[in-house]
Amino acid sequence: MKALAVGIDLGGTNIKGGLVRRDGSVIVKKSVKTEVQKGTGPEPVVGRIAGLVADLIAEGGVDKSELVGVCVGSPGPLDSRRGIVYETPNLDWKDVPLSDMLSPLVDMPVFVENDANVAAFGEQWAGAAKDSQCTIMLTLGTGVGGGIVINGELWRGVNDVGAELGHMIIDYAGRLCGCGAHGCIEAYASASALARRMKEQVEAGSASSLRDAILAGEDVDAKRIYEAAVDGDRLSREMIEETGRLLGIAIVSYVNIFNPDCVVLHGGLVNAGDMLFQPLLAEVNERCFESSLRVLRVLPSALKGDAGIVGAAGLAFQRAEDIA
Amino acid sequence: MKALAVGIDLGGTNIKGGLVRRDGSVIVKKSVKTEVQKGTGPEPVVGRIAGLVADLIAEGGVDKSELVGVCVGSPGPLDSRRGIVYETPNLDWKDVPLSDMLSPLVDMPVFVENDANVAAFGEQWAGAAKDSQCTIMLTLGTGVGGGIVINGELWRGVNDVGAELGHMIIDYAGRLCGCGAHGCIEAYASASALARRMKEQVEAGSASSLRDAILAGEDVDAKRIYEAAVDGDRLSREMIEETGRLLGIAIVSYVNIFNPDCVVLHGGLVNAGDMLFQPLLAEVNERCFESSLRVLRVLPSALKGDAGIVGAAGLAFQRAEDIA
Repeated sequence: MKALAVGIDLGGTNIKGGLVRRDGSVIVKKSVKTEVQKGTGPEPVVGRIAGLVADLIAEGGVDKSELVGVCVGSPGPLDSRRGIVYETPNLDWKDVPLSDMLSPLVDMPVFVENDANVAAFGEQWAGAAKDSQCTIMLTLGTGVGGGIVINGELWRGVNDVGAELGHMIIDYAGRLCGCGAHGCIEAYASASALARRMKEQVEAGSASSLRDAILAGEDVDAKRIYEAAVDGDRLSREMIEETGRLLGIAIVSYVNIFNPDCVVLHGGLVNAGDMLFQPLLAEVNERCFESSLRVLRVLPSALKGDAGIVGAAGLAFQRAEDIA
Repeated sequence: MKALAVGIDLGGTNIKGGLVRRDGSVIVKKSVKTEVQKGTGPEPVVGRIAGLVADLIAEGGVDKSELVGVCVGSPGPLDSRRGIVYETPNLDWKDVPLSDMLSPLVDMPVFVENDANVAAFGEQWAGAAKDSQCTIMLTLGTGVGGGIVINGELWRGVNDVGAELGHMIIDYAGRLCGCGAHGCIEAYASASALARRMKEQVEAGSASSLRDAILAGEDVDAKRIYEAAVDGDRLSREMIEETGRLLGIAIVSYVNIFNPDCVVLHGGLVNAGDMLFQPLLAEVNERCFESSLRVLRVLPSALKGDAGIVGAAGLAFQRAEDIA
């Protein structure tokens, strides 16, 4: 049984890669700039991934024959079975057969997975949700991504567009979401939505230490709102607490649907700690069935920035065995 | 391989039973009154189930040796692995070890499952969702029950309290639900909730042909509201259409979460047909991702009143094989 796998986390800005053991530990990790140039097609980026794989093998001082393969976590939508990335706005890709393009360059099997699914798998395989029977993961970023792991297997949906947990509706007459529907949790509780709600409050006249910056058009993001809250800004604190409450309400629904033993939250916003988690857990504890709460843990990501590479490597092990 | 199984549908009013083949067809079915007498414990009802099983075998003209076992669909909460029914308000049961009590009486393996799960399994095994890879089922009755079947297996949750699809929140500041939370779909779209919303409208002064009956305190149920709608009552029609829209909104969330190929609706309310389904499908088609819609079918139950006995028999086959 081959002992190693490479996990790749393909983002619009950086490509991260890791050489990973079967216990989820990382031997060496490395990242390169994605450097997408419009109109050049996917080849330059695919070539950069192949170079990253070669570098990881060299720096790890291992032999290629010890590797089961490579798995790339990519923004979607994509076809995980055939390894085709349908569309990624940041990369300017359209129907890219990533597995077929990368596999000959690295001379081993290449698997492709949705990036949120990869992170969820990573947490269940070697992170916060280790040994969990049912893990629900939310990634809080520009949007709210999701992943579902049941009995150690990702549930991807019938045609790979499941686990869109950010598009569960919590207020059907509420905020317009980027997806075109109203009231999705993503429209309330992503890092971007937090910044947007903050801006609305300030524009409506609420006092805040961030008022001048926001009105001057500065890019006041979730991190800055958190820092202001820590420094005593009341509006910032209220906005983060409200985010926690709304996430808590969404989690109640996931819990009633799945009865999971683990809900993992991922993304920079999670660093807000108690300010986010206390109101979140208050909603969960108040609204969920007691029997569900008996098995439930709600946890921050343990793998953090490495969830993508570790999860992708874990999936390379799992999927290489499936085809073996 | 034994060719037959008995499925039992245990309700507060009736116990229904069926002798079922491996293709889901029913050889003979039969029902008896549940006749619960407070304070007598579960024995009389368990005895009645055993009698029903014996009658089915006799009337079917089959030999007991052809049966894999019995599965009882029961109101929950319950422990499906150990066959213990924790609580059933209508039966006045508390921690009843149904499998252990019934198995010696019928002299074969006895399995216990949540009734909504049983119906979902039945539809996927031999009903509207046959051959589906992922079925989501909603039963519209006093409450809104749910069932999830993925790759032919029920997802029951980590401790058997999953698939509470009626307790997904669609309006977090909305109607108080029986579960104590606000805005669950059950509080809007069960048959009982329809009757309640109708009553509220009438009490608030809306015109309706059912006005006098409602104000006189008559029990105007979903069926009567549907009949009034067919007879031209505008308020009744609006209330049913609104139920369809709200169910549609909930289904959008299930679809975004699961990316299923089949959503099945079960219960008397489904007989409202287009009046319910048209507004429902309009929401689904407007709010879901196009890629999800490509694989999705939203269907009324095919097994209807037999979903309980057929589904339970199907689970008896599956679970008997699992322990074999």
